[in-house]
Parts: sequence; structure tokens; C-alpha cells
Amino acid sequence: MANGKSEDKRLESLPAKLRVAPGERVKLRDEDASRDHGWDEAAARAQTAKLREELGELQYKLYADGRQALLVVLQAIDGGGKDSTTRHVISAFNPQGCTVTAFKAPSAEELKHDYLWRVHRHVPAKGEIAVFNRSHYEDVLVVRVDNLVPREVWSERYQQINEFERLLRAADTHVVKIFLHISRDEQKRRFRERIDDPTKQWKFDPADLIKRTQWKAYMSAFEDMLEKCSTTHAPWHIVPGDHKWLRDLAVAQILKEALAALPLRFPQPSYDPKSIRLD
Amino acid sequence: MANGKSEDKRLESLPAKLRVAPGERVKLRDEDASRDHGWDEAAARAQTAKLREELGELQYKLYADGRQALLVVLQAIDGGGKDSTTRHVISAFNPQGCTVTAFKAPSAEELKHDYLWRVHRHVPAKGEIAVFNRSHYEDVLVVRVDNLVPREVWSERYQQINEFERLLRAADTHVVKIFLHISRDEQKRRFRERIDDPTKQWKFDPADLIKRTQWKAYMSAFEDMLEKCSTTHAPWHIVPGDHKWLRDLAVAQILKEALAALPLRFPQPSYDPKSIRLD
Repeated sequence: MANGKSEDKRLESLPAKLRVAPGERVKLRDEDASRDHGWDEAAARAQTAKLREELGELQYKLYADGRQALLVVLQAIDGGGKDSTTRHVISAFNPQGCTVTAFKAPSAEELKHDYLWRVHRHVPAKGEIAVFNRSHYEDVLVVRVDNLVPREVWSERYQQINEFERLLRAADTHVVKIFLHISRDEQKRRFRERIDDPTKQWKFDPADLIKRTQWKAYMSAFEDMLEKCSTTHAPWHIVPGDHKWLRDLAVAQILKEALAALPLRFPQPSYDPKSIRLD
Repeated sequence: MANGKSEDKRLESLPAKLRVAPGERVKLRDEDASRDHGWDEAAARAQTAKLREELGELQYKLYADGRQALLVVLQAIDGGGKDSTTRHVISAFNPQGCTVTAFKAPSAEELKHDYLWRVHRHVPAKGEIAVFNRSHYEDVLVVRVDNLVPREVWSERYQQINEFERLLRAADTHVVKIFLHISRDEQKRRFRERIDDPTKQWKFDPADLIKRTQWKAYMSAFEDMLEKCSTTHAPWHIVPGDHKWLRDLAVAQILKEALAALPLRFPQPSYDPKSIRLD
């Protein structure tokens, strides 16, 4: 096992390794979803537990500071671990000050608006964290794969999304985007586990099998999303997701780095502490 | 220290001891805010940590089940520990499926509606937990103490609130209400700590000193709230709040009991698990 110091360095360098540089080409079949980045399960879990504590402290300071916000976008194919990551990492945050929105198929009302309308109302207020479990990116994923709108419409969206995220950044909402990358074999294992376990059968939808047959089309759509929308103001990260413990560690470290980079401070009081008398 | 079994029994009997029976008279000055109910700090903290695990598991089942919801209402005087309880107990829940709404002074838009309008939109969906940090009860607390509406108006509200909570219960939203009870001396200690600690000064508002001079009026308003609105369908609990470790333990156990009483089950699949083939 590595000693503490080299482990710290390995951890600190992880987010940069997973980040997609603006304009970088992405070939998902060349990205090994089972990479461990030099970690074993026990060390990764221990480190994640420590990071959870730090995330809680950083959130508290973000809340007290009240001038910045964090938006975390999670995307993945079915079985990719969006819910599981939320449960194991995002739960480090106090729900007062952290909202998680799981976007489903749009409602009739939502469909009467542009596709950014329903997500815009869920972006975080200053001092808060918002997590999107699925997001506006579904409008260049399932919408594209299933031809729900013509190519002329969805192909304009990458730039629209970049501009939308730039608007958020201009209002001190920092956007961190995470793509959980699993292999087709791992998806099969997870589907099988859901189908065979009576406490998990409710999580499986036979319609997921249709999406499984569209694997290649989804990978192409993910690649375009990652290539066209990883910007300096709102970068994408590709997190290897076959090992849940490496995934949780990587996500926790990405979030920690994002929060630790903010100029947070406890506000100066609007009163003179020395002048307060209590009876 | 008590052995495990007698400790379990002591814990199980705690919520019933703190519950206000419908129609019961409440005299807050006779309620000792520093009661420990036979617990010491170390045992209480260890038990709270165990309960946090159980709360996470119960929430998961509530979410999977998808037929019931839980609404937790927290009320207290300033410094009573609403934020702290949320941070230490409510954070046991996955924020996906748990929303915390901290109600502040109503906005201009909210004031154009009845006082239940703004809270109604934040009640939990089936499968979810919602926590109100302050709530519609402010409309019979600060509103009453500061004469923001005439007595004829606020005095009607107790019954309106009971009917509103009955409506929620009829839709399988279980309402659990918790009053965090601290002594006037403890409030002084906590204010002093906030004023003296540069990382806490932002939490203190000199306007809180005015409310401190209204202590008696607030206690009367709390007593009426507890007497008139503790119902079988939505009971109030008075949690002694001077010891934070006893408070956290009591709140965790109240929530555990509420969730454990629900007829939760993992849903039957809508498909035949044996019929699913994966390639």
C-alpha cells in the first residue's frame, strides 16, 4: 500500500486526468471503464470516507459565504451508477443547501417550453449546491438517438448549452460535469443483478433493453457531448465506472477540488461584536 | 453504562415520552430543556450514529416503495438548534429524495397568497421526505407575537392548519412535528458563542435580541401551537434541546419510529424476471 503522501498526490492528480480538454477528441471504446488509476478497493473506500467529511465542511463554508454556487451534472447510460453515486457521494452534503433533481421524460407542460426552461429553475442559489441526475444533456442524447427532434434542431444545442452554462458561470455558479463511463459487459452484470434480486427488481425497466440495443448510437452521442461541451468554464470529466469504489473516489475528489478552488470565507458581521450585550 | 437491551428499550420509549397527547396542556417553563432521559453524551452519540445508518436504509425503502411520504416540521426559538439538527440528523438522508426548505420572511409574491400556499408547494411527493425548517407555524408564532395580523385572523389558523395536515395525511403524507425546546440561559450561551467566534458571527443577527425580549410571548405562542395542533394524525414532540447530543438522539429516534411504522415493501416487478434475456 502506498504511504500517505504519495497517496495524496495520486488523489490530487486524479481530476485533471479525467478532465476532457476543450476541443479534445473522445473515443469511448478506447477509454477503459475498469481502470483503477492505481487504487485498490480498501484504500479507495477509506479515502472516500475522508473526502465525505471534507465535502461536508466545504459545503458549510460555501453556505456561510453565500456568494458562489455549485452545479454538478451527472450523466451515464442506464446502470451507469448515477443513483448510486448520488447515494454514496452526494449524500455527504447536508440536504439543507443541496438539492438533487432527477430529470425524467419531460411533462406535457415542460414540452411546451424550450428544453432549458425546466432545468433553469433548478440551478442552485448562491451558497447552495444543485445536482442534476440526468440534465439538459438528455436533449442531445435520448432525443438525438430516438430522433425526437430533427438533426437541425439538436445539432444547434451544443452551442446553446455552452452559452447557457457560461451565463451560469458569469453569475458565480460553477458547473462541474461528470460522465460515468461503464462497459457494455458491466451494464449486463448490473441489469442481471437487478433482475435477479427481489429488492432491486423495481429498478429495472424492460424498456432499458431497447436502449441497450442502441449502445453504439448512445456512445456516439456521448462522444459528441463530451467533445463539444467540455469548456474551460464547465468541464466534463470521464469517470471510469466499472469499479464503484474508484468511481466514488473520483467523483468525491472532483467535487472537493471544485469547492476548494472557490474563494470562500466566513462573512464579516454587519454589527460590532463588542457592542452586543446579552441579558 | 446500560447493557444493549435496556438501552434499546429506553430508546424505543423515548418518542412516546416526548409526544404531546391531543388536548394535553403544555407549560413550557415546567419542561426541563436540559433533561437527559437517562443518557450520557458518549452513549447518545454512538446510538445516533447507528440510527443515522438505519434512517438511510429506511429512506431507501420509502423511495423504492413510492406510496408514502414523510413531512418533518422543525420549530424552535432562535438558537434552538434547527440548523444544527438538520446538519447532524437530517443529513443521514440521501438528498435525492429529501428536500429541506428553510422558510424565511415571506416574499412579496408569497404575501399575495394565503399563508399555506408557499408551504404547500414544498410538501413531499410520494416516496420522498420533506423537512420544513420553520414552517406554516410561523403564522401563529412571529405573526402573532408581532401582531402582523389581527387576533381574529391568527386564532382561526390552528384549525386551518389541523385540516391542512389532515389533507396531507389522507394522501399518505405522514406529518411529524418537532419543537426543539431550549432554556433562556442556553440561548444566551449560544448567542454569545456566535458573537465571539469569527466563523459563527454571520449566524447572529442583532434583531434576534428583540425577539429575546419577547421570550414570554413566544413561549405562550409555542404552548398554544403545541396544545391546539398536536393531533393523532400529526403529533407534536417537545425535544429537550439544551444538550445537543440528547436532542440529536431524540430526533433521530422519532424519525426512525415514524418511518419504521410505515408498511413499506419493495415493489413487485411489472415484468416476469425469468423472461428477460440479456445479450
